[in-house]
Amino acid sequence: MKQWVMAKRPIGLVKPTDFRLEETSIPEIEEGQVLVKTLYLGVAPVMLRYMTNETEFERPMNNGDVMHGRGVARVVKSKCGKFKEGDIIQTKLRWREYAVIEDDPYYMTYKMNNTDLSLSYGCGALSMNGFTSLLGMRDICHVKKGDQVLVSGAAGSVGSMAGFVAKALGCKKVIGIAGGKQKCHLLKERLGYDGAIDYKEEGLYEKLDQYFPDGIDVFFDNVGGELLDEVLARINRRARIAICGRISEYLIPPEQYHRPRNLYRIGLKDAKMEGFFIYDYQGRHSEYENQLAQWIREGKINPLEDIAVGIEEMPNALISLYKGTNGGTRMVKLDS
Amino acid sequence: MKQWVMAKRPIGLVKPTDFRLEETSIPEIEEGQVLVKTLYLGVAPVMLRYMTNETEFERPMNNGDVMHGRGVARVVKSKCGKFKEGDIIQTKLRWREYAVIEDDPYYMTYKMNNTDLSLSYGCGALSMNGFTSLLGMRDICHVKKGDQVLVSGAAGSVGSMAGFVAKALGCKKVIGIAGGKQKCHLLKERLGYDGAIDYKEEGLYEKLDQYFPDGIDVFFDNVGGELLDEVLARINRRARIAICGRISEYLIPPEQYHRPRNLYRIGLKDAKMEGFFIYDYQGRHSEYENQLAQWIREGKINPLEDIAVGIEEMPNALISLYKGTNGGTRMVKLDS
Repeated sequence: MKQWVMAKRPIGLVKPTDFRLEETSIPEIEEGQVLVKTLYLGVAPVMLRYMTNETEFERPMNNGDVMHGRGVARVVKSKCGKFKEGDIIQTKLRWREYAVIEDDPYYMTYKMNNTDLSLSYGCGALSMNGFTSLLGMRDICHVKKGDQVLVSGAAGSVGSMAGFVAKALGCKKVIGIAGGKQKCHLLKERLGYDGAIDYKEEGLYEKLDQYFPDGIDVFFDNVGGELLDEVLARINRRARIAICGRISEYLIPPEQYHRPRNLYRIGLKDAKMEGFFIYDYQGRHSEYENQLAQWIREGKINPLEDIAVGIEEMPNALISLYKGTNGGTRMVKLDS
Repeated sequence: MKQWVMAKRPIGLVKPTDFRLEETSIPEIEEGQVLVKTLYLGVAPVMLRYMTNETEFERPMNNGDVMHGRGVARVVKSKCGKFKEGDIIQTKLRWREYAVIEDDPYYMTYKMNNTDLSLSYGCGALSMNGFTSLLGMRDICHVKKGDQVLVSGAAGSVGSMAGFVAKALGCKKVIGIAGGKQKCHLLKERLGYDGAIDYKEEGLYEKLDQYFPDGIDVFFDNVGGELLDEVLARINRRARIAICGRISEYLIPPEQYHRPRNLYRIGLKDAKMEGFFIYDYQGRHSEYENQLAQWIREGKINPLEDIAVGIEEMPNALISLYKGTNGGTRMVKLDS
């Protein structure tokens, strides 16, 4: 079997030479363990922070360690009562063709219900990314009929689901913000958004005024910083803001963060701002999967995937994320 | 009957000469109306903004208009099916000994259930102020066993209830912030707080560190501005911040508001910040009254009141609010 290890700790952005492909034997399992075959592996911007040990959500890495990563796998052999051969699970697989998993909370192992749909959805629409869009829109923002909704980072793996979810919940209008003409075209033509704003063009805030002459009811934010401040300036009474990510702040120190002018409007407008993390809502994941799967079957969600083939593609898939993606959920298919 | 009218629109803070006491006849009522006798009238800082027409929550005032105000009254005569003689209600009475009320949402009329307790509670513990403390602590902040709770403006009409409510909900510790030694003494000795911080003394933020070495889980805020920012710097994962008031910002223009450094911690800590207004939760008021009344009977809440006697005292009661109160709910008793 093949696996990718960290060859060098990255300085700045990741490069191909930070990774090394190794061959090793398929491991034996002990009592309590499960051997799984990797089907799909996701890539996410946070992986750079795994490599630099800058996140509390993964175990520290050293040179020579197998890369952290999550994806979809099939149980091949089980010595654990909780899983049986043939089960399709999402778990922390690392970048390898086979993995040994234990029944330990660390792995956040999740057994999929809707395996009649494409198993690739376990890296996107029916993964923690998809669940995040439903948690944020329905359970944090309580999107309802008539709401006017804004999403930032709208072409990303969560954002590309968030527009569909807002519409499925009956919102009046959902507008997405993304970088570049191509992504904005995708938002409108492929991802269910009623309108798109290209933040690389001039006049981002004027466009907010044009799209929301009556103010913003719901903001699903993946960006933070100045954009969040400008949205606060435009919120309606009892608006809801879900803080899903803060990509504008990930690569600068806190001293350089934008200091908002409009935070007082949370109090003035009796609005809500809430950060959230899908791992804190584990009891609900199965219901999230079933609701999203139902909307996929009904045609209300049409997941956009960007799939490379072969474990050899892992570093390129990750590196390309930081250059801007083609939109949708980027993943690598190893088997199916 | 006597009533107070606005003699002059205040410039800066209110003065005795901004008011005039008039005598007039007790009005007759028409079909659909109710005549009530005022028992207690509350005073609140917002009343200055009624007089300067700076709030959207009251009808505009001109010189000669009867002062806006809310309190407790007994129904004396009723031509409205919804109320009968002898009912005890809280409503928008204005500053007068008798008032005519209609069944109109403007009045936010609320009929009291627990009239075996002191009727003065209808201006404090069992009024919108008391309801606000329960709404904020229980329904916005979800205070639970083990939570470490901070309240600003802790000696005010809402804050003087908030400590009791947090303890009744089982929090581990509740600390109050207020101005002056006397108020801080009250917080600890009379209002159920486990500790008090005098913001007029030096070292407010060092004292936060001393009281909360393990961080803050819940902040019930009546102040806003820099204090809110410093609390954000100290919040725990999944902390909850209820924005009840922003007194630090009421007398300065938005350009001068403090620009926070630590808003990003809402996202980092998956925390929540929510503004709220008791009038948006009308369906719950009766349940709030009953829960608070139960805690009063059980001795878990011991309301602190600051009662002047006679309608003549109204301007002084209001003016003294801006000088700092003796603590608790300031009101004027007209009858009982």
